[in-house]
Amino acid sequence: MNYTILKGNIVSSTALNQLEITENGYLVAADGIIQGVFATLPEAYEGHVVQDYRQKLIVQSFSDLHLHAPQYPMIGLGMDLPLLDWLNTYTFPLEARFADNDYARKIYRQLAQELIANGTTRVCMFSSLHREATLILMEELENAGVTGYVGKVNMDRNSGDVLQETTEQSMAETALWLEQCEKFEHIHPMITPRFTPSCSDELMAYLGKLAQEKNLPIQSHLSENDKEIAWVQELHPDCEQYWQSYAKYGLWNDKTVMAHCVWSDERERKAMKDAGVTVAFCANSNTNICSGVTPVRAMLNEGLQVGLGSDIAGGHQIEMHQVIASTIATSKHTTMTNGAPCLTVAEGWYLGTSGGSEFFGEQAGFAKGNPLHALVIDDSHLPQVDSVEARFERSIYRRQTGAITAVWSAGRKVLG
Amino acid sequence: MNYTILKGNIVSSTALNQLEITENGYLVAADGIIQGVFATLPEAYEGHVVQDYRQKLIVQSFSDLHLHAPQYPMIGLGMDLPLLDWLNTYTFPLEARFADNDYARKIYRQLAQELIANGTTRVCMFSSLHREATLILMEELENAGVTGYVGKVNMDRNSGDVLQETTEQSMAETALWLEQCEKFEHIHPMITPRFTPSCSDELMAYLGKLAQEKNLPIQSHLSENDKEIAWVQELHPDCEQYWQSYAKYGLWNDKTVMAHCVWSDERERKAMKDAGVTVAFCANSNTNICSGVTPVRAMLNEGLQVGLGSDIAGGHQIEMHQVIASTIATSKHTTMTNGAPCLTVAEGWYLGTSGGSEFFGEQAGFAKGNPLHALVIDDSHLPQVDSVEARFERSIYRRQTGAITAVWSAGRKVLG
Repeated sequence: MNYTILKGNIVSSTALNQLEITENGYLVAADGIIQGVFATLPEAYEGHVVQDYRQKLIVQSFSDLHLHAPQYPMIGLGMDLPLLDWLNTYTFPLEARFADNDYARKIYRQLAQELIANGTTRVCMFSSLHREATLILMEELENAGVTGYVGKVNMDRNSGDVLQETTEQSMAETALWLEQCEKFEHIHPMITPRFTPSCSDELMAYLGKLAQEKNLPIQSHLSENDKEIAWVQELHPDCEQYWQSYAKYGLWNDKTVMAHCVWSDERERKAMKDAGVTVAFCANSNTNICSGVTPVRAMLNEGLQVGLGSDIAGGHQIEMHQVIASTIATSKHTTMTNGAPCLTVAEGWYLGTSGGSEFFGEQAGFAKGNPLHALVIDDSHLPQVDSVEARFERSIYRRQTGAITAVWSAGRKVLG
Repeated sequence: MNYTILKGNIVSSTALNQLEITENGYLVAADGIIQGVFATLPEAYEGHVVQDYRQKLIVQSFSDLHLHAPQYPMIGLGMDLPLLDWLNTYTFPLEARFADNDYARKIYRQLAQELIANGTTRVCMFSSLHREATLILMEELENAGVTGYVGKVNMDRNSGDVLQETTEQSMAETALWLEQCEKFEHIHPMITPRFTPSCSDELMAYLGKLAQEKNLPIQSHLSENDKEIAWVQELHPDCEQYWQSYAKYGLWNDKTVMAHCVWSDERERKAMKDAGVTVAFCANSNTNICSGVTPVRAMLNEGLQVGLGSDIAGGHQIEMHQVIASTIATSKHTTMTNGAPCLTVAEGWYLGTSGGSEFFGEQAGFAKGNPLHALVIDDSHLPQVDSVEARFERSIYRRQTGAITAVWSAGRKVLG
């Protein structure tokens, strides 16, 4: 057995709005699997090396359930543009550049490193339609220590001039890509129709069959804005609601993440709950693009599974600390509008860590049996505060450059 | 004459929603006063040293019209608490610590340096009630290169146990403080009743008289939340609206900044416009404390003078780049709620720079006759983008640590 024993002020998000704080405690993993959090080190582990982080905070690392890797170079660009202009001016031309493998290598290496530096160790990520660039992305994530899922994007209609594939290309490339990505250990493929309007019925049927046959997870976009919803209704007059355009092709189950769900009403939310679909709540992009406000409190009350997405580059912050702060701010705007109780700091943190990690098969918090995904936060440069809980809360709101001094991902130390 | 000639990609916010971009241009100041922005260097300045920043951006520095210096150590703490608990748990006990001059020196030195590092060169700032700590704050700001106004806070009622002064103390200390701060060159005193509920009528009358006699600027809080407004109405039954509790004592004129104004209705806004009162819009704290959303679009349409405040520590971001992004996000929430047009990036930038600097007697943008307040932004570590305007917009949204490489304040180079 190979033991990892971390000592420090441990904060574990064991349930929505519940933090378990163990001051000067021990977080123990054996062969990368968490054995528990202990106030004093159990005898069984005595004699093994203890990495003592003293007064520093030891917390879970983040899950980012929705981001577009090829949009990484355009973070912060075009934030005034309406969605369609934004796509045509920046997004599609930029994604088209990932036909160039050297460009992909350079950008994706930076992206993978920035994710780890900011403590994101699990992702559900869109690549572009390019098979080779997608494999490069997966290599770079694997090398940097990011785990989770990546999808080669499928889009055979309604996608402009610079970025489209034929139905045949899309199917053949996806099949070849799936073969080629069997070599990865920590990063796996995810079926990724861009969204209903950009995939023909034939392609959707193929993807659904593939997901079913190979038991693959699925990601896409759902009910982000009203024009998109109306468009889906036109394209699929047999579907009363947007989600049904995925469900009818077998793309709607408990291995599915749907981004946004801003306008998902009670019925669509019930369909999510019944199928076990996970919501990726993307507060920054919802605000930047004026999509609306995801009814996150209703979703939580109804028992839906919810995680957070940075949604780079509709979102402008890749740092999940900041995404959590924006998520809480968005919920406070809802409070000011309709009185729905806003998210607490503990709840925002839960969504950005445990809420997302559930999709990867983990239990909430530093639970026994989870792979070790953890961060060390050094706030010694900030004013002294005695309460560990207050320091933890501050770490979400106050700028973190350089504060994350060590990161573990799936049991491996990947930073520090 | 002492010339400062800066060469680079110059962006000047000359009016709301109007950017003047001069690529590879020259920004010229003589003895610290701007002479103009030129596409080619006029003959008159030939032979003088040109500081060539090549492809970097040269932009205006920020004005922060509302922040509480003694709350600097508590940034990001207690963001879940209701206002009163937040004040009693964190704010008042912390402010009370500034009776200790050594503590004040240490904290205020850090604050002043962080302001300059983030490009804030003009402030309207609350100190605490302590005269000596206020002088220390002014010294530290002056030494670091921050210009503008600081107020010793006046509060002789309703301020808890740990932080109160008698009416006599408040008046005597204010008078003494005003004498003692005549020595400063770039930082000046500002009359600062904390807000109506914390100042007795006698104190308010004294402060109004003082402001009038010595022609001093004034700052306070106005219409931040409904409970506060109701309280003011109880305390001043003769005042139909909150603003009148300032106006009746001579604390309401064109040298006045009022923070928040979230609930200022058409009548209160007209009173502002008529008197020439400036609004300090504090998007972050309004959201964090769930105060409401300041009707900034209405204020701008009505011709009010509006600038931005970080409102540390109700606000959690001291970096005005981020405050501008939050300001725009807040306005987008208004758009999503009631359809009012949101702020553009150029408008947000205007409010954080020219909008605020008007209070200090400047014209908008790098206008001839303004003291030189400028930043150099190095974005060479980010992906290459050809458009200067797009790079400028990105600088607001994408994290800036280390990107501000030089700062001028009132003609002096204070960083880089």
